[in-house]
Amino acid sequence: MAKALKDKPQVIIVGAGFGGLEAAKKLACKDVRLTVIDRTNYHLFQPLLYQVATAALSPADIAAPVRAILSKCENVEVILAEVESVNVEARKVKTNDMEFDYDYLILATGARHSYFGHDEWEKLAPGLKSLEDAVELRRRILLAFEFAEKTPDEADRQAAMNFVVIGGGPTGVEMAGAIAEISRYTLAKDFRHIDPSKARVILIEGTSRLLSAYPADLSESARKQLVELGVEVRTDARVTDITESGVQLDGEFIPCRVKIWAAGNNASFVGKTLIAPVDRVGRVIVNDDLTIPGHPEVQIIGDLANFSHQTGEPLPGVSPVAMQQGRHAARNILRMVHGEKPQPFRYFDKGSMATIGRNKAVADLKFFHLSGFPAWLAWLFVHIIFLVGFRNRLLVLIQWAWAYLSFDKGARLITRNFQSEHRPPA
Amino acid sequence: MAKALKDKPQVIIVGAGFGGLEAAKKLACKDVRLTVIDRTNYHLFQPLLYQVATAALSPADIAAPVRAILSKCENVEVILAEVESVNVEARKVKTNDMEFDYDYLILATGARHSYFGHDEWEKLAPGLKSLEDAVELRRRILLAFEFAEKTPDEADRQAAMNFVVIGGGPTGVEMAGAIAEISRYTLAKDFRHIDPSKARVILIEGTSRLLSAYPADLSESARKQLVELGVEVRTDARVTDITESGVQLDGEFIPCRVKIWAAGNNASFVGKTLIAPVDRVGRVIVNDDLTIPGHPEVQIIGDLANFSHQTGEPLPGVSPVAMQQGRHAARNILRMVHGEKPQPFRYFDKGSMATIGRNKAVADLKFFHLSGFPAWLAWLFVHIIFLVGFRNRLLVLIQWAWAYLSFDKGARLITRNFQSEHRPPA
Repeated sequence: MAKALKDKPQVIIVGAGFGGLEAAKKLACKDVRLTVIDRTNYHLFQPLLYQVATAALSPADIAAPVRAILSKCENVEVILAEVESVNVEARKVKTNDMEFDYDYLILATGARHSYFGHDEWEKLAPGLKSLEDAVELRRRILLAFEFAEKTPDEADRQAAMNFVVIGGGPTGVEMAGAIAEISRYTLAKDFRHIDPSKARVILIEGTSRLLSAYPADLSESARKQLVELGVEVRTDARVTDITESGVQLDGEFIPCRVKIWAAGNNASFVGKTLIAPVDRVGRVIVNDDLTIPGHPEVQIIGDLANFSHQTGEPLPGVSPVAMQQGRHAARNILRMVHGEKPQPFRYFDKGSMATIGRNKAVADLKFFHLSGFPAWLAWLFVHIIFLVGFRNRLLVLIQWAWAYLSFDKGARLITRNFQSEHRPPA
Repeated sequence: MAKALKDKPQVIIVGAGFGGLEAAKKLACKDVRLTVIDRTNYHLFQPLLYQVATAALSPADIAAPVRAILSKCENVEVILAEVESVNVEARKVKTNDMEFDYDYLILATGARHSYFGHDEWEKLAPGLKSLEDAVELRRRILLAFEFAEKTPDEADRQAAMNFVVIGGGPTGVEMAGAIAEISRYTLAKDFRHIDPSKARVILIEGTSRLLSAYPADLSESARKQLVELGVEVRTDARVTDITESGVQLDGEFIPCRVKIWAAGNNASFVGKTLIAPVDRVGRVIVNDDLTIPGHPEVQIIGDLANFSHQTGEPLPGVSPVAMQQGRHAARNILRMVHGEKPQPFRYFDKGSMATIGRNKAVADLKFFHLSGFPAWLAWLFVHIIFLVGFRNRLLVLIQWAWAYLSFDKGARLITRNFQSEHRPPA
């Protein structure tokens, strides 16, 4: 490292998700030393994770190596490690195997699923946050059809053809729609003893409507579009138990082999090691400039932050919030480095969209609401634009075009773990 | 199922590799009932597996769902199951959970690595036969660079930058070349504390030359091309032990974190359950029509068969042999179904080729030998043509073009197992 670089202030960014990566890009080739620490070696485009889980895309299509994205600037180093805690008094970040000192910190460690105190449900009903989650769900979904084709037991067969998605937010809506599409189109002709298009996809939502963060007309449109695809939507339904054999609702047991959890998030445990106030789901309550009380050098962004200064409510855990906060935190650090005052953060909400299936989506663009084909086109366009890397954009575009024209999904692999490879698959 | 179909003879094909799939295609939509049993749900294009292991391609790019390939013909059913044994007297195939009766059987269960009695080496030095193997090797190779970047210990760092490939056949040559390329080109600028281009890639071969099945001039050319890439080639070198910390040769210990096994194969254990003569590596010794003595209804093909009627030597375990045998076995079954006599098998050898890296390869086309750029072009062309599925061909072509122009490899993901996901990566 050059001598000059050594004398510059050290910035650490923990987490290379949407927020962390935006901050890193702003600080790359600037007057700081920058260390980016992530527990994976790639930036993951989470909005398309459900397409990996439903065999439309490969993991590498929606992930880009963090090193490669940031390699051009000499002031950036990337460390693959899992951060365990932050000592804000000593200004140290502790990973599983090392310690790092910082002058400025951006903490962007995101969120994981929350099972509302039922951690034993996680193995039975995996969520969808990581590539590993997505590949496991793909495996379970495809294996269910294989099992149904083989089993001589009619009750087992029906349970294997029931897919229960728990949680009617964007992830739940997208998963339910995509499973319905696979069974109706992609797999329709591939089996001899079952009719995949008879698969039941049941979407369970605890409140009175799907996509509760969206305007009511779009919630209703999403419900209608799902029903057109053959999804059974149950609102005001509460899950009281999950077992190997099915999902228990108030007064009804749904036998099913595959259960998918899309019902709740908890912020990363790293937030709690700051000894700063956190909310009910573990998010760190931040000042209006994204810092924590008494520590202007510590910025918290993205799903880990509870920022309530704009509307009185915490901003939602979506990528535009994280990206804007990432850029803002980086700018404020550069201001402080140059002796200027940090500025308060303001979120500019451009709207949000969720896809349901082929030609089906909803989009809340603030000034107007879209449903169906126009919403779906808008969704496609925005997701291709925001994917990181020209290579990924090209590969995703080609696979989408292929899938649209052929009704085929290309990544229908049932893969196993390396250790368990010599074991039978089912 | 239609009544007419029920009265037709039942053919079972075990294994949907190159041989089994060709046989299945020949028997699809013909006057038989056909059941294809495989322990994975996809046909794997094994010759490109090393490109998954070295981050150039994604698993789904080189695999195609068996169901989708065969879905058009009503007489074909596909079963995902692991075959445990065959009872040739009772004409039954036993899987982990079911039994199937047959009138005709094609057994094409292939081969696995052989560690020459040192099974404990398998975890330390994985081979490259399955997608799971490839993803695990990719993980180990990429993690070694990550570890080297982080570790403060100079000896550990050097060991992490040593890559030992054991076995100088086509797989070993391709792996060694690809690792050298990644370190020299793809990763060259991505690290701050190590210089990836200083990585040592050591290729160990027990005999006096690489690619011993090839003509001597091509073996020498392969060696030269590897050395140009910076690979250290050790011929006449014997591995006496493998441990966590390295590889022991006669009189030399090479400290290394990543070891790759490409040294030997054993035929699938299913062959031994036939109670027919097998050779030293477990291959079933077949008649000149690919059947076993006393059982004209049982055909053995591909890597599982020892067919020595043509040259006195067993035919090599390569895809053209398996594919020609698959088609031949299918034709013989159709002959028998129609009351005709089965014909002896003859292998038509069109040659073979192995790639080493960018613009580097060798090709033995029988009438003439190619090296370097023309061999590499021929290799590209043949591999694209033989890939199954237009979608895969298009995706592989685009990724190769991208990699060629940019020196980038797109699938540089370090992924973990679902179960171990919450554990630190290193």
